[in-house]
Amino acid sequence: MDTSKKTIIVFSGDFDRVFAAFVIANGAAAMGDDVTMFFTFWGLNALRKPEKIKVDGKTGLQKAFAAMMPRGTDKLKLSHMNFGGAGPRMFKHVMKQKNVMSLDELIESAREQGIKFVACTMSMDVMGISPEELIDGVECVGVASYLGEADEANVNLFV
Amino acid sequence: MDTSKKTIIVFSGDFDRVFAAFVIANGAAAMGDDVTMFFTFWGLNALRKPEKIKVDGKTGLQKAFAAMMPRGTDKLKLSHMNFGGAGPRMFKHVMKQKNVMSLDELIESAREQGIKFVACTMSMDVMGISPEELIDGVECVGVASYLGEADEANVNLFV
Amino acid sequence: MDTSKKTIIVFSGDFDRVFAAFVIANGAAAMGDDVTMFFTFWGLNALRKPEKIKVDGKTGLQKAFAAMMPRGTDKLKLSHMNFGGAGPRMFKHVMKQKNVMSLDELIESAREQGIKFVACTMSMDVMGISPEELIDGVECVGVASYLGEADEANVNLFV
Repeated sequence: MDTSKKTIIVFSGDFDRVFAAFVIANGAAAMGDDVTMFFTFWGLNALRKPEKIKVDGKTGLQKAFAAMMPRGTDKLKLSHMNFGGAGPRMFKHVMKQKNVMSLDELIESAREQGIKFVACTMSMDVMGISPEELIDGVECVGVASYLGEADEANVNLFV
Repeated sequence: MDTSKKTIIVFSGDFDRVFAAFVIANGAAAMGDDVTMFFTFWGLNALRKPEKIKVDGKTGLQKAFAAMMPRGTDKLKLSHMNFGGAGPRMFKHVMKQKNVMSLDELIESAREQGIKFVACTMSMDVMGISPEELIDGVECVGVASYLGEADEANVNLFV
Repeated sequence: MDTSKKTIIVFSGDFDRVFAAFVIANGAAAMGDDVTMFFTFWGLNALRKPEKIKVDGKTGLQKAFAAMMPRGTDKLKLSHMNFGGAGPRMFKHVMKQKNVMSLDELIESAREQGIKFVACTMSMDVMGISPEELIDGVECVGVASYLGEADEANVNLFV
């Protein structure tokens, strides 16, 4: 077993949970760990490009799901005290005041540190999200791929 | 330590989280892993038989809790976009279109693959759920039993 | 690796999730394990003193956040069926009937068993919670400190 490997399943698409996942991931990478983040279900929304991408071949329900879910970090909601979007704005404001990295900066830092972003193909299918709607550099894989990485890691979290 | 053992605590009773737990569990079992799922609090609802079971000796509050909570997979709600039950129906419909296994099929497959289902006695007590209200083949145990299994596993998730 | 070490990230401030975290932590400590609980975001609320503490130097937004969040275990909400506070009261009542330890008793027991409570400085900053607002004996640390502990543990959960 390699003690320098970590995996995080990002199931939640709540701003606060996604933020926590990236803080842990960046912290581990800064300590020299090899980190894989596996985005599934609502967590996929954090990786969506903010602009609308036209994709052929979606069913009506897939289109409906995709349309109702937030596109990208800027639209994610807080799990509590969201207040119609005022909560996340307040959070972001305090973060700036306190010189805490923003979620976008954390994602950028994660990429620079070589953290691996993988997205679950099955939940992409169910939620109607196509690979071209995700930010660049995301590998789309199945659960077996996650399990292979988790087997080699010493810390595996489900967020 | 046995790298071929996994445990998942299913705390949540949200359809999407329970579904994710069973996808991971089945994937691990398919790769030859020994998997234990520990159902506690709301997660117990996923193991309830769909029909009402008459049980003696419940207090009024236990009865009230049990009555307000969903009985079985078909009644579980989505953690987001539930829309009074329309969300889960949409999910299930897309899953069928995409040939993704349903939650019931995943549970069936989990049993066939020998995944161990254990239920937390303490939360059963608090939530007023009796062993006879759960589907067959569920062992009711305490937290020490979970910890014993987790000590032997290399991946332990809390869902 | 030391199989007798466990860490739990308490991200959630929901009564039921915090309760589950303390049941697992106390169970592990009772089996001789060395346990660290890392409180972050909403989980910090479980460690707040119930009385209002005057702290200088908070910004307006930090004050607003701190004021809107529950102070201490008695004010935590259920993740489901909260019913404006009636849900937690029902839970606590059944727990008493069933001789299940209360959350306060679990916290007390955790301290007596030497479970280490650490709080995440970054989320304290963002949420406007000062060290003096937390119960005694909580160490305030960064994510690197958590990661150092997790590296030595064989079970690491995110609640």
